[in-house]
Amino acid sequence: MSDVDVETDVLADVVADVVADVVADVVVVGMGCAGASAAIEAARAGASVVALDRAAPGGSSAVSGGELYLGGGTALQRACGVDDDPDQMYAYLREALGPHPDADKLRLYCDGSVEHFDWLCSLGLAFNPSLFEGVSWLPPTADGLMWLGENAWPFTTVARPVPRGHRPATDGYGGWLLMDRLTTAARDAGVDIHPDTRATGLLQDGTGRVTGVRARRFGEEVTYRARRGVVLATGGFADDTAMVADHAPVLVGHGVVSDGLDDGSGIRLGIAAGGSVRRMAATQIALSVVPALAVRGLLVDGRGQRFVNEDVYPGRFSQAAVLHRPGPWFTLVDEKGWEDVPERERWGVRPAVVAETLAEVESELGLPPGSLEDTVARYNHDAAAGEDSLFHKDPRWLRPLEPPYAAVDARRGFDPDGTGPRGGTGVSGFTLGGLRTSVDGHVLDVAGVPVPGLYAAGRATSGIHGEGYVSGTSLGDGTFFGRRAGRAAAHP
Amino acid sequence: MSDVDVETDVLADVVADVVADVVADVVVVGMGCAGASAAIEAARAGASVVALDRAAPGGSSAVSGGELYLGGGTALQRACGVDDDPDQMYAYLREALGPHPDADKLRLYCDGSVEHFDWLCSLGLAFNPSLFEGVSWLPPTADGLMWLGENAWPFTTVARPVPRGHRPATDGYGGWLLMDRLTTAARDAGVDIHPDTRATGLLQDGTGRVTGVRARRFGEEVTYRARRGVVLATGGFADDTAMVADHAPVLVGHGVVSDGLDDGSGIRLGIAAGGSVRRMAATQIALSVVPALAVRGLLVDGRGQRFVNEDVYPGRFSQAAVLHRPGPWFTLVDEKGWEDVPERERWGVRPAVVAETLAEVESELGLPPGSLEDTVARYNHDAAAGEDSLFHKDPRWLRPLEPPYAAVDARRGFDPDGTGPRGGTGVSGFTLGGLRTSVDGHVLDVAGVPVPGLYAAGRATSGIHGEGYVSGTSLGDGTFFGRRAGRAAAHP
Repeated sequence: MSDVDVETDVLADVVADVVADVVADVVVVGMGCAGASAAIEAARAGASVVALDRAAPGGSSAVSGGELYLGGGTALQRACGVDDDPDQMYAYLREALGPHPDADKLRLYCDGSVEHFDWLCSLGLAFNPSLFEGVSWLPPTADGLMWLGENAWPFTTVARPVPRGHRPATDGYGGWLLMDRLTTAARDAGVDIHPDTRATGLLQDGTGRVTGVRARRFGEEVTYRARRGVVLATGGFADDTAMVADHAPVLVGHGVVSDGLDDGSGIRLGIAAGGSVRRMAATQIALSVVPALAVRGLLVDGRGQRFVNEDVYPGRFSQAAVLHRPGPWFTLVDEKGWEDVPERERWGVRPAVVAETLAEVESELGLPPGSLEDTVARYNHDAAAGEDSLFHKDPRWLRPLEPPYAAVDARRGFDPDGTGPRGGTGVSGFTLGGLRTSVDGHVLDVAGVPVPGLYAAGRATSGIHGEGYVSGTSLGDGTFFGRRAGRAAAHP
Repeated sequence: MSDVDVETDVLADVVADVVADVVADVVVVGMGCAGASAAIEAARAGASVVALDRAAPGGSSAVSGGELYLGGGTALQRACGVDDDPDQMYAYLREALGPHPDADKLRLYCDGSVEHFDWLCSLGLAFNPSLFEGVSWLPPTADGLMWLGENAWPFTTVARPVPRGHRPATDGYGGWLLMDRLTTAARDAGVDIHPDTRATGLLQDGTGRVTGVRARRFGEEVTYRARRGVVLATGGFADDTAMVADHAPVLVGHGVVSDGLDDGSGIRLGIAAGGSVRRMAATQIALSVVPALAVRGLLVDGRGQRFVNEDVYPGRFSQAAVLHRPGPWFTLVDEKGWEDVPERERWGVRPAVVAETLAEVESELGLPPGSLEDTVARYNHDAAAGEDSLFHKDPRWLRPLEPPYAAVDARRGFDPDGTGPRGGTGVSGFTLGGLRTSVDGHVLDVAGVPVPGLYAAGRATSGIHGEGYVSGTSLGDGTFFGRRAGRAAAHP
């Protein structure tokens, strides 16, 4: 670069600073877990940081369960007497998030997990040092560690079973607590948070470099100049019906797990600036099934066929059902199975049918005649022999079912507070695909070349996931790769 | 626009023409069925047309089976005594190509199908006026009309069963014949075809308008100026392993149905120019199963479970297997079923096991003990009753299976010429996702706005498909929407 070029650049920078309403080294768009983590690390790396959020800080992260998928031998795992290492964690996640997860991101994520846990603790997040042994979407206890499918087939064949669900110490959903700590840490690090500010465009100079953000706040346009980089952390696109139909049609017509603002706007901004996308069809799926009931009985599809070992992480049996089997989906238990689950752990579900014979159940549910009889006969035969020959559910859950039977229809949904089921289809989910990024959060164009000045993290990106999903991997990779993106943007 | 602006534009056009190596009104990239159709119609609309192909004209279309999915009452259907109308065709395709196919494109496709058939005939394509009644990937006869799943459940519940597979009159694969006629018609219309010319970039002016193509021919760079528009008709991306892993990972490691050049280059060019994509995960799948055998017996998955009515279009049972069930996949028949299919129609497959008992078959194939016994017991019970309670295979195919049994392993593949199986995984496919286009072939950006000067058609685009696929819909929508794109590019 000649002296004249440098001088022109300096002059252009001065002009850009003067024209902008707000100037910072790094501008972060979206203050969910990924954006907050990026903002903290960018500020701690010495950058001046402004973080926008179209609402208040928190995003979908704040309304999530709060589990973080961490391992490799974290302090919490050690306190619970659990022995783990990064290779076992990698082996499990490669299988559970596959096929074909992003191996580079996944390796870094596993190798850095112990440090990342310590970082989260350093922000004031606490975890109770006890393990919940049951199967559940969310344990009814305050235990800080839980299983997320690691002790179920086929994962037991590829990795030593180790629990890695890390739950911040609070009652029920813990996402709000994670976001409280991250937001406080961001403020403490000097991040200037601008709520109610919606990004509407990215500024690019003549070379294509992203130099800032155009936004609206209460109807006024505000221009943010980013001297070093812009980090998109705007979440997924599950709330945008057109994008869902175009890219992840399995979610069409179903419920959305989000704060209602995951409309893919940041992904579209990134694309319009030259970024490319990856795995846009990948989705998290939650079927309204109580894992504690299902594991004591059977899950069957709309033809009365079993389709999964019911002791897997519930996100996995949900994917197995909704992505691969015709609905409706039912949980079949017997009286003992039903009674073994305390009422408050049944999440308000009620049987669609209770009957002495499987023929009655088939008839009531509209299943093919004989289908449940076949399925239960095989299951009971296997249970008596102590081996689930079809799906390898752990023997501790195997017991021949006896009449009377009860079947729960997943379409009815949960009714946790007894005020009536929530309605909907019994299926909800969010999107896992998004902008293609390097392990340091650089948004990559269709040729794999970084778009200068543009970074992204969280569900606006395609993260560590292939097709599969495990709870805690979204907050997990959002915070983990959010930190990396923040550091990279601060020192491009 | 002021006079000065207009003058500047005229001057810029003159300069662009002088700088370019080749100047035409419309430049078509890729001379498969979509590109050839676009070139013909653009030229007939009065445009000067240059069409590039990195190899010779033909593309993957030329190595395809040549079936065209057409209907609504074509001359061929009427000659075969078949009564059809566009609404029935639409009802079938909406279900078979779903969920969520592109309704606007599909409606046009069905409403315009009779005219499109006549257009193809006017190019010299002939179809024998007789119907093949059997089930097959490709009939062993020269019949011009075939069923493509219209007479199988669940389609019989949404539309009147009508055969719509239109096969050009030739022995075996007919794609070469289609491309011969299209290429000849393009030349006759005055299209200048440049073979061995690979597009490497799109030219855009300062407003983002696509104004031409940069290409390489035998190591030399050639610049094509397109006065009115560029049509991308470069095919899908099944041959690009990185794009497949990023977008359609189900195909990773499997065979590719193409001419070897479907590397997604045109999709990437379109993205780089501002185009957006749609349904990148959608795929056609072919499992090496002989439909005539499967329909006389059972298809089972790696757990010995049945998963589909075996009388559907084979592309559908292939998707049902590969997208949704664990492999390996087997065809189970009895002696009578095997003998009922003439040897030359067995495509060279051989049983992996022949045995008197299902327990032996299970053991030889590594299936769970008892699984086939369960499956066959239910099937035989249903067959005796004349109703397939699980999957609704048509009663004419139902017959209780009797020992001895034979099972064919799809992984072994076909061996049509007796020289040994072709190897591979028994699975092959191609991609259905691509650039998002209007019904007139305008490439749309992420906001749904056309990229000026840029058009696309064929498998470089997301066409009439949702997740499903039926033979003939790729050549069908490639030629149909190729024509529309060519006309739109000629008169933008």
